[in-house]
Amino acid sequence: MSANLSGALRLTFLGTGDSAQTPAYGCDCLACERARQNEAYRRRPCSALLEAGGQRYLIDSGLVDLAERFPAGSLDGILQTHYHADHAQGLLPLRWGEGAPLPVFGPPDAEGFADLYQHHGPLDFSRPFKAFERRALGKPGQHFFVTAIPLTHSKITFGYLIESGDQKLAYLTDTIGLPDESATFLQPFRLDALILDCAYPPQLDRPRNHNDLTRALTDVRALNPVKTFLTHISHHLDVWLERHPLPNDFSSAITFARDGMVVEC
Amino acid sequence: MSANLSGALRLTFLGTGDSAQTPAYGCDCLACERARQNEAYRRRPCSALLEAGGQRYLIDSGLVDLAERFPAGSLDGILQTHYHADHAQGLLPLRWGEGAPLPVFGPPDAEGFADLYQHHGPLDFSRPFKAFERRALGKPGQHFFVTAIPLTHSKITFGYLIESGDQKLAYLTDTIGLPDESATFLQPFRLDALILDCAYPPQLDRPRNHNDLTRALTDVRALNPVKTFLTHISHHLDVWLERHPLPNDFSSAITFARDGMVVEC
Repeated sequence: MSANLSGALRLTFLGTGDSAQTPAYGCDCLACERARQNEAYRRRPCSALLEAGGQRYLIDSGLVDLAERFPAGSLDGILQTHYHADHAQGLLPLRWGEGAPLPVFGPPDAEGFADLYQHHGPLDFSRPFKAFERRALGKPGQHFFVTAIPLTHSKITFGYLIESGDQKLAYLTDTIGLPDESATFLQPFRLDALILDCAYPPQLDRPRNHNDLTRALTDVRALNPVKTFLTHISHHLDVWLERHPLPNDFSSAITFARDGMVVEC
Repeated sequence: MSANLSGALRLTFLGTGDSAQTPAYGCDCLACERARQNEAYRRRPCSALLEAGGQRYLIDSGLVDLAERFPAGSLDGILQTHYHADHAQGLLPLRWGEGAPLPVFGPPDAEGFADLYQHHGPLDFSRPFKAFERRALGKPGQHFFVTAIPLTHSKITFGYLIESGDQKLAYLTDTIGLPDESATFLQPFRLDALILDCAYPPQLDRPRNHNDLTRALTDVRALNPVKTFLTHISHHLDVWLERHPLPNDFSSAITFARDGMVVEC
C-alpha cells in the first residue's frame, strides 16, 4: 500500500496501534476479533521506518521482533519519541547483543525505560535531542534534517519534523493537542505529510495523553498539510469508525494508517 | 520431545535462553547462526508452562507473544520468579487488555518491572509469596502445592518447589548457587526433576548473577535429583558445549533443556 507523493522521503508504518494493540488481550470487540481472523487488521505498537538520505532510521522501538526485522547493521539509528513501554520495549533484548553502537536519539528523559540506560550494550543513548534542535542526518552529500518538536504527553515526548530537499514530513506521536510553541513552529511549513496521534473516538471530556478524533482534526485544520495519516489508533476507534464517516470538509486528504502502509514524498 | 516420568505434573519449556536470547542481536557465533537457520535451536526468554491440579500456570512471562499463545482465560495464573525484563516483559501489553483478573504470584518486590504495578489492568499482583511460603493451588480436589524458594540474584528472586501427590519438581532460576537456607530446605526432598539456571560455560571467576556449569553441577550434586534440566542457557554455553562433553559421574540424568521440551512426572 503506497501513498505516492514522489521522492526522497519514505516512511513505512510498522505499527499503528495504541499501547493495548489490536487485537487487545481479552477483548472480543469487532476490531479485535477481525484482527485475530485477518492479520491485515492487526495494529502493532506505534512505530515506523524512515528512509531518507540513503539511510534507515526506526521511529520508535516498541516492536518486539526488532532483531529479526532489522539485523545488526541494517539500521543507522533510532528516533525515539519517548520512553513508554509500547514505544521502547523492543530495545530490551537488543542491548544484550553485540556489534557497533546503534544511536538512539530521543528526548532528554533522565529516566528512560526500565533499566535500558544502565545496561545499554550497543545502544547509544548519549546524544538526546534538545527541544527544537535541528540535526543533519543522512550519508555525506545526501543530508536530510530532523527537528525535535515538543509534544504534550505524560512523559517527555518529541515528535519529529523531517526535511529532505523540498519535502517535509512531521511525525507527531504521542500527544494530545500540540504545545503552542510547537504549533507556532510548524505552522509556516506546508507539510507534505502529517502523521498524527489519534487514539480515540470523539470524547466529551478531555482524553488522557492522546488525541481523540476531534482534537486530532483540530490540529489537522491548524497545520493544513497536503496529506494526513492518523496513527496510534485504539481498537475503540476502529469500532467507532465502522459506524461513523469522517467529516468531508478538509483540504487535507486524511487516511487512517494501517501497518505496512507506505508514505513517499 | 518428552522426558517421560509419568503423571500429575507437566512442565513445558517455553524458553531456555538468557537475557540476550539465541540468536543474540548482532552475534555471528556458531550457536546464533545455527539458531537463525533452524528454529529448533532458538532459545527464547526463560520461561515454562506448568500444568498441574487441572490448572495451567506460566512460570515467568518474558515471551513477547503471550496474548497469542495464551488467550485470556487459558491461564490460571503466573508464577513469577522475579521482575527482570527478560522474565516479565511479556506482561507489558497484557495489562492494557480486558477481562477477569489474572493472578501474578511473585516475590515481594516493591519495584516490580517498569510501570507494571502502577498500570496493572487485569493483572493482579496483590498476593506475592513470602519466602518459603507454601500455597495450595489447583482445582478443588486436585490440589498441588507451590513453595517459594529464595534464590541468589541481583533482584529479589524466588524459585518454586512444586509438589503434586508424590511428585516433586523444583524450578530454580535465576540464581547463582543457592542460599544456604534454600539448599537446606530442599535437601530432604528427592526431587523427581530439578530445573536449574546454567547460563555460562565454566568460569574461573565467580560469574555475575547466574550459574556457570561448574556451579550448576555443584548444586546438582548437593540436591541429587532423579533428573536435572539445565536452562537459562546463553549462546556462549551452547558454543562451549560443542567442544566439551559433560562429566559422566552423575547419578542425576542431566539434560540441557530446549524450547518446547516437556517434563512429565
